[in-house]
Amino acid sequence: MTSNETIRPGEAATALPDRTDAGVYFIGHIRTPWPTRELCPRRGDPEGPECRIEIDPRWVEALEGLASNPRIQVLYWMHEARRDLVVQITRRSGQRIGTFALRSPVRPNPTASSVVELVAVEGTTVTVRGLDCLDGTPLIDLKPARD
Amino acid sequence: MTSNETIRPGEAATALPDRTDAGVYFIGHIRTPWPTRELCPRRGDPEGPECRIEIDPRWVEALEGLASNPRIQVLYWMHEARRDLVVQITRRSGQRIGTFALRSPVRPNPTASSVVELVAVEGTTVTVRGLDCLDGTPLIDLKPARD
Repeated sequence: MTSNETIRPGEAATALPDRTDAGVYFIGHIRTPWPTRELCPRRGDPEGPECRIEIDPRWVEALEGLASNPRIQVLYWMHEARRDLVVQITRRSGQRIGTFALRSPVRPNPTASSVVELVAVEGTTVTVRGLDCLDGTPLIDLKPARD
Repeated sequence: MTSNETIRPGEAATALPDRTDAGVYFIGHIRTPWPTRELCPRRGDPEGPECRIEIDPRWVEALEGLASNPRIQVLYWMHEARRDLVVQITRRSGQRIGTFALRSPVRPNPTASSVVELVAVEGTTVTVRGLDCLDGTPLIDLKPARD
């Protein structure tokens, strides 16, 4: 694992398992206006800028019928985050808190889920509003939002 | 990939990539009353039975502070599902539809997310109501639900 993050005083790491248990395919990438984590909004805004989800052509047929959903769930992989912290010190309040009590990207599996407004499905491009992730984030799933 | 499922007439598969792009750790397992997919409810009921999420002791410190959240998001891995179908025929209506327009477990990355009611956090056990997954499902993440 590579990481550009350091542990802050009070934070705790665990030893990661020797190996992973299953594999994820990156099925596309998400293009957003935010090139660094510091510039990302704290949470997505349904009236925020349009973002483009570019699907690998291998999966294009799987988009059939998606356009009829006004809102979709986007699952993605926060590929820049370290994975071994169990206790974190929050940047805002300096509070000590367990990783599973946070929505921080730093977690054993850096998976995230956002429910967003669907704007259009055209070819291999799905345009949405309401994301808050880094430009270039790997996509792992798309599905209709729960109604 | 092993699979106990066959393709139905009208369904379409794609060639899976030669390798995966990232690895998932199973951080625990979910115990539910449903031993087969056929017996699982179609969707979780917040007043349904209590289910126990058993966390690997390696991650127990990461539960600190979780108990203050009335609702949490549970991400899990639907480990029995095949991953190569791009078009599916729904069992109920016989409709042809793309994988990303369905919430079926059959998808390139069998990730699922449920928002559930938190009942208790005790040691390595998190008790919740509202899940609909198979007994023994691998857990990949826990986090506070979006408010």
